[in-house]
Amino acid sequence: MTQETAVIVGAGKGLSAALARRLAKDGFRVVLVARDVAKLAPLVAETGGQAISADAQSPQAIEAMFAEVDRTFGPPDLVVFNAAMRYRGPIEVLDPADVMDAYAVGAFAGFVTAQAAARRMLQRGSGSIFFTGATASVKAMPHSVPFAMAKFALRALAQGLARELGPRGIHVAHFIIDGGISSSWATQGEAGPPDKWLDPAAIAETYLAVHRQHRSAWTAEMELRPWVEKF
Amino acid sequence: MTQETAVIVGAGKGLSAALARRLAKDGFRVVLVARDVAKLAPLVAETGGQAISADAQSPQAIEAMFAEVDRTFGPPDLVVFNAAMRYRGPIEVLDPADVMDAYAVGAFAGFVTAQAAARRMLQRGSGSIFFTGATASVKAMPHSVPFAMAKFALRALAQGLARELGPRGIHVAHFIIDGGISSSWATQGEAGPPDKWLDPAAIAETYLAVHRQHRSAWTAEMELRPWVEKF
Amino acid sequence: MTQETAVIVGAGKGLSAALARRLAKDGFRVVLVARDVAKLAPLVAETGGQAISADAQSPQAIEAMFAEVDRTFGPPDLVVFNAAMRYRGPIEVLDPADVMDAYAVGAFAGFVTAQAAARRMLQRGSGSIFFTGATASVKAMPHSVPFAMAKFALRALAQGLARELGPRGIHVAHFIIDGGISSSWATQGEAGPPDKWLDPAAIAETYLAVHRQHRSAWTAEMELRPWVEKF
Amino acid sequence: MTQETAVIVGAGKGLSAALARRLAKDGFRVVLVARDVAKLAPLVAETGGQAISADAQSPQAIEAMFAEVDRTFGPPDLVVFNAAMRYRGPIEVLDPADVMDAYAVGAFAGFVTAQAAARRMLQRGSGSIFFTGATASVKAMPHSVPFAMAKFALRALAQGLARELGPRGIHVAHFIIDGGISSSWATQGEAGPPDKWLDPAAIAETYLAVHRQHRSAWTAEMELRPWVEKF
Repeated sequence: MTQETAVIVGAGKGLSAALARRLAKDGFRVVLVARDVAKLAPLVAETGGQAISADAQSPQAIEAMFAEVDRTFGPPDLVVFNAAMRYRGPIEVLDPADVMDAYAVGAFAGFVTAQAAARRMLQRGSGSIFFTGATASVKAMPHSVPFAMAKFALRALAQGLARELGPRGIHVAHFIIDGGISSSWATQGEAGPPDKWLDPAAIAETYLAVHRQHRSAWTAEMELRPWVEKF
Repeated sequence: MTQETAVIVGAGKGLSAALARRLAKDGFRVVLVARDVAKLAPLVAETGGQAISADAQSPQAIEAMFAEVDRTFGPPDLVVFNAAMRYRGPIEVLDPADVMDAYAVGAFAGFVTAQAAARRMLQRGSGSIFFTGATASVKAMPHSVPFAMAKFALRALAQGLARELGPRGIHVAHFIIDGGISSSWATQGEAGPPDKWLDPAAIAETYLAVHRQHRSAWTAEMELRPWVEKF
Repeated sequence: MTQETAVIVGAGKGLSAALARRLAKDGFRVVLVARDVAKLAPLVAETGGQAISADAQSPQAIEAMFAEVDRTFGPPDLVVFNAAMRYRGPIEVLDPADVMDAYAVGAFAGFVTAQAAARRMLQRGSGSIFFTGATASVKAMPHSVPFAMAKFALRALAQGLARELGPRGIHVAHFIIDGGISSSWATQGEAGPPDKWLDPAAIAETYLAVHRQHRSAWTAEMELRPWVEKF
Repeated sequence: MTQETAVIVGAGKGLSAALARRLAKDGFRVVLVARDVAKLAPLVAETGGQAISADAQSPQAIEAMFAEVDRTFGPPDLVVFNAAMRYRGPIEVLDPADVMDAYAVGAFAGFVTAQAAARRMLQRGSGSIFFTGATASVKAMPHSVPFAMAKFALRALAQGLARELGPRGIHVAHFIIDGGISSSWATQGEAGPPDKWLDPAAIAETYLAVHRQHRSAWTAEMELRPWVEKF
């Protein structure tokens, strides 16, 4: 097998970093995409990949980023969209601008990323486009309307594209991460079993397994949660 | 019972007109809200209500509209959000601007409307906020990504608000209209049984029945489809 | 409109009694079906209907019951299946016989009832068959496996029949009762707002409204829950 | 790692055979359970495992089978329930006995198997119990009521046990196989791409990956379908 290329959009220090490490270990060339890539330098050094600064809400910036990947590595085999922004509050005090921003960061940017990825993958009839969802992708909780609106929309994107691109050879999948990730803010100062939070390395293992699925038995949606999580 | 006030946002000639007629018949004062209200003059004449021009994407315009309703009729008892915009096409040719517009018209405007309605209804601890969904609210089809993203997001808004506002006395409901409405474009020149399309008057009957539900047995989501519809 | 006939299978003192009262008030002739009908005498006296003893798990008994209704009132316009049996316990201590009994009472009897009802309704191409579901119809909780297995199965029956019988003129609907009913065991000695439980009269109102729906806009599934219920 | 033991209930020549081969290749000792084990001799010879005859509807027979496995190999690490029986027909002609049989084979036997497996796994606080679902697990189609009732019920069992046993260390998962399996009857004489059907070896790969998941990121439900499948 020739070396594969992965592009991770919305790269931070949690799941994206774990994915980069796991994919690099499996031989992938990993491209990390974020607005601020300075913070990614240690990870790039570790995984031997590349970081590209781009605002995923900008079709031009994302197109330019993929064009650079094309030139350096060729079209991507796996594109993962991880970006999200949470705003919380009762309906009567939420700022409408935050509702729009949550959508722009967490759903519209997913569309922009998927469109540029699909244009490349359709040319050779293969590739995987993965979206990271959350509990809020299927259950909208009180005081979390902006986040849920974006996450439901991202799931619609993933589901529509799974139906549209699957028969054209592209594997689109949506992962419902139903719990807190252990490297995220949610885990600070909390007690409980050592693995009560999702280990990002464990999530990355499943993403890779789904990318490796034969096209006769593809998964379009699955959930991942810690063993002790209520649901 | 004192006379109730209904506000219908995204008023056109299909479901909104049928709702206006049905509610007027039941004694409601009906306010029709659209960007272009000139076309609504005959309906206003028929239902004895009022039309107010407002862009539902503008929090200021919607706040001004509700303030006018407050002055004229008092706070609304029932607010229905009906607006939507469809864009179709394969992922590789869709215009990102249309993805954003579909969301702004069909989901963000729903947030703006619901927020202004909730602020009023929370003061007296009662009222209904209804959202009109579609097949695409729960199933994202190929070549319809912008519409599905907006409709999934609107469902998230409805579901989150049902959980948040129900215990505060406000009835939030989401109606999945799973089929073409007989007065819409979809029904031109089609054969089949006379009622193979959804009759907007029949839909309106159900909206009124749900508004009349006692709070001990509220519906937060239901589907409506023609008897002959495949699903 | 000629007088309609309703058959309520699994008749007890909660929802079935409320339905019988509401339907009788609307002019229906109401037939109450239970294994033990002696306890139903006061309700029959009140609603002016009829009680027939039959075990809904027996196709022969249910056929005989409907044959009696045919002779007395003609084929039924509305058939409601309400029976259910709860068994609780951790998986390791449950009695397999109880798993089978929960299914026989709560799902298989629903099939038997629906089959006999459908045979009659198909002859004239109209009628409604309603199934009463529960939270457990869509969410299987720990220590409640037998009940959830039966309720999921009953929902499958309702959904399959909605697809199969709708285009043949029969309205099949499934109601997810997501909360305790105020006349049931669940409500003994509990505090909270006076309407924190589902009022069976309120549920009955919605069942009647759904039966009255025009076939151009039928509901196949809806949920009903108290305003203060967590979900 | 010490050698693991897998028990596959409802073993035939399709998915169960592929699972047996894949697990054997990974070092598992594989026990195949069916009513008729004579037909499994070649597979046992190939995988080096064992076949035990047992009727999964019989708690006594399944207990005896697991007791034999305990003695030979120790408590199982992975138990897979694959049995199902399809009956088709319009509601008005279905035989009620077939509705009961479909449930007994496809859902009750799953309970019996899971209960005996759970009793063993709870003692050491680990192990996986997997259930094979179908399209009919989440969508009940016309003329397929008996199968859908059983498959919905099996999903309830899986979901309830995932909630109940997960926090006690046991991984319960439900796989929605949304399409025909290439070794099954459905694939005879059909045209299309070579992988338009689910390859049982590909499904087996995913089952193994899910069994290998770290408990901090378990999957309780996922779907698998061929790339060209409509859904």
